[in-house]
Amino acid sequence: MTVNTFEALESNVRSYCRSFPDVFVRAKGSVLYAQSGKSYIDFFAGAGALNYGHNNDFIKERLIQYLQSDGISHGLDMYTSAKETFLQTFSDKILKPRGLNHKVQFCGPTGTNAVEAAFKLARKVKGRTGIFAFIGAFHGMSLGSLAATSSLYHREAGGVPLHDVTFMPFPTGFIDGLDTIGYMEAILTDDHSGIAKPAAIILETIQAEGGLNEAPIEWLRQLRDLCDRHDILLICDEIQVGCGRTGPFFSFERAGIVPDMAVLSKSISGYGLPMSLLLLKPELDVWKPAEHNGTFRGNQLAFVGATAALEFREQTGLEAETERKAKFVEQFLKEQILPIDPRLTVRGRGLIWGIDTSGCGDETLSKAIASRCYELGMIIERAGRNDVVVKLMPALTIPMEELAKGCEILKQAVTECCASNLLQPELV
Amino acid sequence: MTVNTFEALESNVRSYCRSFPDVFVRAKGSVLYAQSGKSYIDFFAGAGALNYGHNNDFIKERLIQYLQSDGISHGLDMYTSAKETFLQTFSDKILKPRGLNHKVQFCGPTGTNAVEAAFKLARKVKGRTGIFAFIGAFHGMSLGSLAATSSLYHREAGGVPLHDVTFMPFPTGFIDGLDTIGYMEAILTDDHSGIAKPAAIILETIQAEGGLNEAPIEWLRQLRDLCDRHDILLICDEIQVGCGRTGPFFSFERAGIVPDMAVLSKSISGYGLPMSLLLLKPELDVWKPAEHNGTFRGNQLAFVGATAALEFREQTGLEAETERKAKFVEQFLKEQILPIDPRLTVRGRGLIWGIDTSGCGDETLSKAIASRCYELGMIIERAGRNDVVVKLMPALTIPMEELAKGCEILKQAVTECCASNLLQPELV
Amino acid sequence: MTVNTFEALESNVRSYCRSFPDVFVRAKGSVLYAQSGKSYIDFFAGAGALNYGHNNDFIKERLIQYLQSDGISHGLDMYTSAKETFLQTFSDKILKPRGLNHKVQFCGPTGTNAVEAAFKLARKVKGRTGIFAFIGAFHGMSLGSLAATSSLYHREAGGVPLHDVTFMPFPTGFIDGLDTIGYMEAILTDDHSGIAKPAAIILETIQAEGGLNEAPIEWLRQLRDLCDRHDILLICDEIQVGCGRTGPFFSFERAGIVPDMAVLSKSISGYGLPMSLLLLKPELDVWKPAEHNGTFRGNQLAFVGATAALEFREQTGLEAETERKAKFVEQFLKEQILPIDPRLTVRGRGLIWGIDTSGCGDETLSKAIASRCYELGMIIERAGRNDVVVKLMPALTIPMEELAKGCEILKQAVTECCASNLLQPELV
Amino acid sequence: MTVNTFEALESNVRSYCRSFPDVFVRAKGSVLYAQSGKSYIDFFAGAGALNYGHNNDFIKERLIQYLQSDGISHGLDMYTSAKETFLQTFSDKILKPRGLNHKVQFCGPTGTNAVEAAFKLARKVKGRTGIFAFIGAFHGMSLGSLAATSSLYHREAGGVPLHDVTFMPFPTGFIDGLDTIGYMEAILTDDHSGIAKPAAIILETIQAEGGLNEAPIEWLRQLRDLCDRHDILLICDEIQVGCGRTGPFFSFERAGIVPDMAVLSKSISGYGLPMSLLLLKPELDVWKPAEHNGTFRGNQLAFVGATAALEFREQTGLEAETERKAKFVEQFLKEQILPIDPRLTVRGRGLIWGIDTSGCGDETLSKAIASRCYELGMIIERAGRNDVVVKLMPALTIPMEELAKGCEILKQAVTECCASNLLQPELV
Repeated sequence: MTVNTFEALESNVRSYCRSFPDVFVRAKGSVLYAQSGKSYIDFFAGAGALNYGHNNDFIKERLIQYLQSDGISHGLDMYTSAKETFLQTFSDKILKPRGLNHKVQFCGPTGTNAVEAAFKLARKVKGRTGIFAFIGAFHGMSLGSLAATSSLYHREAGGVPLHDVTFMPFPTGFIDGLDTIGYMEAILTDDHSGIAKPAAIILETIQAEGGLNEAPIEWLRQLRDLCDRHDILLICDEIQVGCGRTGPFFSFERAGIVPDMAVLSKSISGYGLPMSLLLLKPELDVWKPAEHNGTFRGNQLAFVGATAALEFREQTGLEAETERKAKFVEQFLKEQILPIDPRLTVRGRGLIWGIDTSGCGDETLSKAIASRCYELGMIIERAGRNDVVVKLMPALTIPMEELAKGCEILKQAVTECCASNLLQPELV
Repeated sequence: MTVNTFEALESNVRSYCRSFPDVFVRAKGSVLYAQSGKSYIDFFAGAGALNYGHNNDFIKERLIQYLQSDGISHGLDMYTSAKETFLQTFSDKILKPRGLNHKVQFCGPTGTNAVEAAFKLARKVKGRTGIFAFIGAFHGMSLGSLAATSSLYHREAGGVPLHDVTFMPFPTGFIDGLDTIGYMEAILTDDHSGIAKPAAIILETIQAEGGLNEAPIEWLRQLRDLCDRHDILLICDEIQVGCGRTGPFFSFERAGIVPDMAVLSKSISGYGLPMSLLLLKPELDVWKPAEHNGTFRGNQLAFVGATAALEFREQTGLEAETERKAKFVEQFLKEQILPIDPRLTVRGRGLIWGIDTSGCGDETLSKAIASRCYELGMIIERAGRNDVVVKLMPALTIPMEELAKGCEILKQAVTECCASNLLQPELV
Repeated sequence: MTVNTFEALESNVRSYCRSFPDVFVRAKGSVLYAQSGKSYIDFFAGAGALNYGHNNDFIKERLIQYLQSDGISHGLDMYTSAKETFLQTFSDKILKPRGLNHKVQFCGPTGTNAVEAAFKLARKVKGRTGIFAFIGAFHGMSLGSLAATSSLYHREAGGVPLHDVTFMPFPTGFIDGLDTIGYMEAILTDDHSGIAKPAAIILETIQAEGGLNEAPIEWLRQLRDLCDRHDILLICDEIQVGCGRTGPFFSFERAGIVPDMAVLSKSISGYGLPMSLLLLKPELDVWKPAEHNGTFRGNQLAFVGATAALEFREQTGLEAETERKAKFVEQFLKEQILPIDPRLTVRGRGLIWGIDTSGCGDETLSKAIASRCYELGMIIERAGRNDVVVKLMPALTIPMEELAKGCEILKQAVTECCASNLLQPELV
Repeated sequence: MTVNTFEALESNVRSYCRSFPDVFVRAKGSVLYAQSGKSYIDFFAGAGALNYGHNNDFIKERLIQYLQSDGISHGLDMYTSAKETFLQTFSDKILKPRGLNHKVQFCGPTGTNAVEAAFKLARKVKGRTGIFAFIGAFHGMSLGSLAATSSLYHREAGGVPLHDVTFMPFPTGFIDGLDTIGYMEAILTDDHSGIAKPAAIILETIQAEGGLNEAPIEWLRQLRDLCDRHDILLICDEIQVGCGRTGPFFSFERAGIVPDMAVLSKSISGYGLPMSLLLLKPELDVWKPAEHNGTFRGNQLAFVGATAALEFREQTGLEAETERKAKFVEQFLKEQILPIDPRLTVRGRGLIWGIDTSGCGDETLSKAIASRCYELGMIIERAGRNDVVVKLMPALTIPMEELAKGCEILKQAVTECCASNLLQPELV
C-alpha cells in the first residue's frame, strides 16, 4: 500500500493529504487523476496557485520550449532574458494599463517571503517598527509574517512570542456593525492608546483563509484615506485573491485604490511554480543591494510561465470569463444551496466563494460536506474560524460543464449532510 | 539598451547583476551565455544551487518528460507519485546507506523556510525559546532565520530588534585559538551566565557566506557531545555545503556525527528549482498537521528533478569525481595562487574553496580580482567578512578542461590585481 | 537665585518643578510653604501619595518614636516587629473585614515594581506571556510595566519596542458607546483573533493619569465574569485610586468584585514614604524564595507609617469624611464650575475629580487654568489625553475651609481663562 | 509564635528571613537585636544599604529634626530645600573634588529603577537598542534591568523572553585567562558577529552578587578605551560597590576612569531609606521632561539622610577608616581562614570580601558556614554561582572589636564546617 511510504518517511506536519488521501499522478485543467484510478473535479486549485488550471497547455508549451532551449534555469538575481521578458510583459499588460508605476522586487519564491520583504521595507522607509494586521488575516508562516497571521493554532506553533504587529478589527467576519475605521482612527489619534503609529497596514481585501470575509469597497477607500492622513503605508496581500481570482487582476481594483505595496505569489507563475513578487511604489525603493536576498529569487521557469500566463489571460479574455462563471456560481449558491437549509449563508466574489455553516450549530458539518464531496469525486476545502466555511475556489479556466458538475456534487453533499444534521438536533 | 528594463522596473535590492551586468540567455553545464555574445565559465554555480551544472541533461530529460505527461505540477502537501518516488529514492540512496532514519518535512521551497521550521520544531520539542547560532553564520532572511544570521548588514535591514538567538564563537574565522567548546560549556553550566539553555544549536559545518570557515572534525564531535550532554538539539544547515558540495552527500559525514535535524535546499532539486527539506529524527516529529505550512511545499517538478539528481549522482560516481577535482583545485591554489603573494591564504574542502585576501591590507583587492575574472570570462563571487574571500564554487560536474581554464583565469586575475596592489603600498 | 542649583545640577527629566517652580521648604496638612514666602493650597497631594495630608501628626509621632527607639530601619525581607505589626494591622483592618484572604508581597517600594511582580507572577501561574491592559492606562515606567502604560510619550522613551501586552478599549475615555466587554469576548473566543489568551488583565477602576475615566460598576462585574469564564487573572492597580481615594479603601469595592491580585503604593505608607504591596490570592502564591527581590522591600519606616495610617483612618472615620467632602466637590463643580462654560464637563468619585476642557477646542486652556491657580496660591495638576483635564486630588484630610478656598481659587481661574478663551474664537 | 504571622500573611517570595528566621526589633551600629533576646553582629549591612551602620546617630538626628520641622516629606520632582541641599552637597563633596560634572537624575528610589533609566537614556542618546552586560552581573528585577541580570533563576522568573541585552565574558569568575577585551573587540569589529554595536556597556567593577569578581584596574581602563573607540556609553552600576564600600566613594575611582553614567542606590541615603540616583554626563542629558518619572523620586527624608551621610563620611574620615579595616579583614582572611582548608580562596577589596568554597567540592558548605555563623550570633550572606561564596560585607563604621569578633565567629564556623566537610570525602 503506497500511502505507507508517506507515513513511514514524511513528517506528521503533512495536512491536505489527510483530507484527500489518494495518491495523485496526473492532472489536466480542473481534473485530478489518482493512482486508485479515480478522478476528481478540482474546486481547490492548489489553494489558489492554479488559477489557470493544471498543466495549462499554453503555458506548458512555453516551459518545455524553454527547458529544451537550455534557457537559464536558476539565475539568482542576475539579469536574464526570461526575467526581462517577464518584467516588460508585466509592466505592459498589468501595471501600465492600471496607471501603476510600482517597481518589482523578486523575493524568495513564497508568499511569506514577499510579506517579510514588505515588512522590512515598510519599517525601513518609515523608521517605525509596528505593523497593523487584521483579525482573521493570514500572511504566512515565517516569524515575520507569522506575527501578522491571526490563526492562534499557527501562532502557538511559532514557539516564541510574536512581536511588533497589532491586530485591528476587520469589517467582516469579526464583530458585525463595528466601526472599524473609526476604531483605528481613534487608536491613531489618541496619545494614550498604547499603540504607536505603525509603519504599514497589511490586508487581504478578501480574507480567504479567515473565512471569505470581504472588505466593502467603501471601507477600502476609507482605509486608503486613513493611511494617507496618518502617513502609513498600505500593503495589499494579493497572494490568494490576486492574479484574477476576483475578476480583475488585483483584488484592490474593485475599490479603485492603489496600495503602496502589493504582494503576489501563488498563481503568478501560471503553472503552480514557486514565485513571488513584491510591488512597491518607486519612491519607497530605498533598498540597498541584497538587503533582502535568497537563492531562488530567480526561478526562471516560473518567469517563463508567468509571462505566458499574462498572455494567456489576455488572449482568452479570462477576466470576462471569470465574471461569467462568477455569476453562475453565485446564482447556483443562492438558488440551489441556500434553500437546502435556512441556516446556511453564502458569500464571495469572482471565483472565490464560501458556504458558511456556522449558523448550523454543528462544527463537524463543513467537514462532513467536504468529505462527502471527496467521496463523490471532488476536491474542495474549508476555511474560516473553526473551518466552518466550505470554500469554492475552482480554476478560473474551469470548463462550464465541470463547474456545473462540481456544483451538483456540492449540492448533493450539502443536501445529504444537512439532512443528517437536521436529524440530529441535539448537535445544534 | 536592455539593462534599462531592469533599472526601470526592478527594485534596487537586486545585487548579483551589479557584479555580473550582462543579460544571460542560456547556460549549459558550467558555461553561461549572454545577450552580448560573450560566454562565461561559472565558478559560482548559483550560489550552490547548481551542483549538477546548468541544465543537466539527465535531469532535464526527466523534467520535460514529466511536464509532457501532465504529471501533477503543484500539489500542496497532498500525496503524489512524484513525491512518493522522491521519498523512496531519498530514503534508499541517502538515508538508509548512512544509517539515518530521519523523517522528511517538505517546507516552503526556500532554505530560510526550512530553517524557520527547524527552529519552531526545536522550540516545541524542548519547550525553550533560545537558539545558539555561530558568529559568521548565514541561515536566511525571514525574521526567524535572520535572527540566526550573523551579517549585521542583513540584520539591520530587518527593521526590528531580532530576538531569541545567541551567537557563540565559531572555531574558525573569528578569534584564533579560542576554546569555543569550552566557552559554550562554561555558558551552559554557569547559573549566572545570563544565557538560558537553548532548544537547539544550528551550524554550517563550513560557513560559506561567512568566509569558508571550516569546523574541524574533532570540534564537530565535541559539539555533538556537548549537545547530548546538555539535552540540546543539533541542527546542521546543509543548504550550501550539503548535496555533495564537500564530497559526501552531507557535509557532517566527514565527522561521523548525526545531527538531530538537517536542512537541505539549493542543489537538492538538481536543476536550480526551488525546493527545501527539513530532516528530523522520528522522535522529534511532534508536529500537528499543518502547524507549519505553505503553498509551494509540493513543488513536484523539483521532486522529479531531485529524484533524477540522486540517480545521476550515483550513476556518475559524482562523489569520487568531486574529490578528484577537489585535489586539483587544492593543488592549483597552493602551487599556483599562493606563490603570487605571500599574504594570500587559501582554504576549502570538496569543491568549495576560498582565497583569503584579508592579509593584503586592501579590502578592494577581492573585488578587483572577481571583476577582472568577469572581464576575462568567468563568474566568481566573494564571501566573508568585508567580502575579502574570493570563493571558488564550480558545479561538481564541471569538465576538467573548464575547471582548469577557470583556474587559469583566476590566476591571471590574482596576479594582475596583486601586482597592482603591491604598487600601491599606501593602501596597505 | 536658588533655582539655578537645580538647573545646574539636576537632569532635564525633572518635570513638576516646571509647573510649580517655587522651592518648597515645609508643608502641613494641605498647605505647602515655599522659600519665597508664599504658601499654596495643595490639590495635588503628591500625585496621590499624600492622602493623609503632609506630615500628618498622628503618623509623624509614630515615625519619630520609631526612629528614636532605633527600630530596624532597613530590613530587606527579614522578619521585623514593624513588618509584623503592619501585616497584622493590614489583615485585621483591611483584608478580613472585606472577606479578603490575599497574601501580601512586599515589593521594591515603587508602584512600578509591584506591577512588575504582578506580571511575573501571573505569567508564571498561567504559563502564558500575554497581558491585557487598557487604552488610557498608566502602570509605570520600568520596561515590564511600561509595556502596559498607554502614553505614547512614555513608551517612545523606552527606547525599545515593548512586547507581550495588548491594549483593549476602556469603556470610558476612548470611544463612546463601544461594547468593550463584547470586544474582548470576541477576541478571546475567536481562533483567528491573532491575540492569544492573556495571563492577566490589569486595570485601574478609574484611570487617573488617563483623564479620570471611570469604569462603570456593571462593567467591572462583567470584566470579573469575563476573567472567570476564560481563566484569566484580574489585577487591580490601586496605586492611585486605592488607599481610600474614592471613599472605600479599595476602589474595586464599589463593584463588589474581588481581583486576583491588587497593587498598592503611593499613600499606603501614609506619609509619602516609598512603599508598595502586591496582594495575591493565596492559591497564586507559587513564588519560589527571592524570585522577585530588591533592596528596599523592607522599608520599615514606611511600615510604621502604614500601620499608623490604617489606625488613623479608622479612628477619624476617614471614609465617611471623604464621602462628605466628595459631595461638596461634586456639588461645587456642577453648580459653580459647569455654568462658567457650557463646553466644560466634570467627572469623578471620592476625592478625585476632573474638569474636562476637551470640548473647548483649546488645548492650552487646561494649562492656563492650572497656571492661574498656581499664581493664586494653589497647586493642581492636569491629566488625560493632551493633558486637557484639570485634576482635583486634595488630601482626604483637607479641612473644609481649605477645600472650599481651593475650589474658589479654581473657580476664579476657570472663569478668567474661559473668558479669555471665548474671546479668542480662532483658537477653537 | 510570631513567625506564623509572616507565614500566614506574607508571600512565599520572602527570602532572607529563611536564613535568619528571628524577628528583629532594634538595631544599632553593627548589631541587630531580636525578639528572642538574641543579638547578632551584622556582616551583611542590608546587602550594602547600611554602609554607615544601623541607625547612625549623626544621620538619625537630622532625620528626626527634619520630621519635627515638618519639612517636605514627599515632593515628586518639585524643587525643595532638602533636595537643593543634597544636590549642592553631593556636587561639592563628591563630584567636584573628583573632577566630575555629571548631572543628577533622581529615579524611582530603587536601584533597578535607576538602571532602567540609564538604559532608556543610553538607547535614546545612541539610537541603538542593544546593551552589553557581563556574565555574572546583577542589575535588578524589573524587565529592563532583569534583561541585564545574569542569574538564570531570576531570569526564568521573568515569565517572558528577555531581549536587547547581550552577555559578554567578565574577566573574573567566568573563564580564567580569557581575553575578554579582545573578545568584545572582535565582536565589535566583525561585520558577521551577529551582535550589533550596543548603546552602552554596563558593569559592576566588582560583581557582588555574582561572587565577588573584581575587574582588574588595567581591564577597566581597557574597557573605557574600548567604549571610547567604538562610541559606546559606559555605565557603572555602583549600587552595591559604590558609596565607599571599596574605600573611595565610587568603585571605579581605583582605575582612574570616568563612566558616562553611574547608578547609585543602597547606601546613598545613609540610613537604609529608599533612594537612587543616575549620574549622567551633561552632554547626555537629552531627556524631555517626565520621560522617566515615578511617584517617589522625591523621597525627601532620604535626601536629608544622604546629605548628612556625606558630611559624616567626611568628618569621620570614613575612607581612611575603611581602608584600615580592609587591611585587617584581608590579613585575617589570609592568615586565619585560608590555612583552615587549602581548597578555600579569598578575595575582595575595601569592606567587601568573599571566601570561595567552590574548590571544596561541596555546594552545601557555604550554607553550613553561614548557618553556623547565625547560630553563633552573626548575620552573613552568600553570593556567587550556586551561592558558594561566603560574603563579608560589614558596615564601614563597624567598631574594630565587633569586626574582630565577627571574624572570630566566622573562623569558628569555617573551621567546624570544613572539618565536617573533610570527614565526608564522598561529597567531594
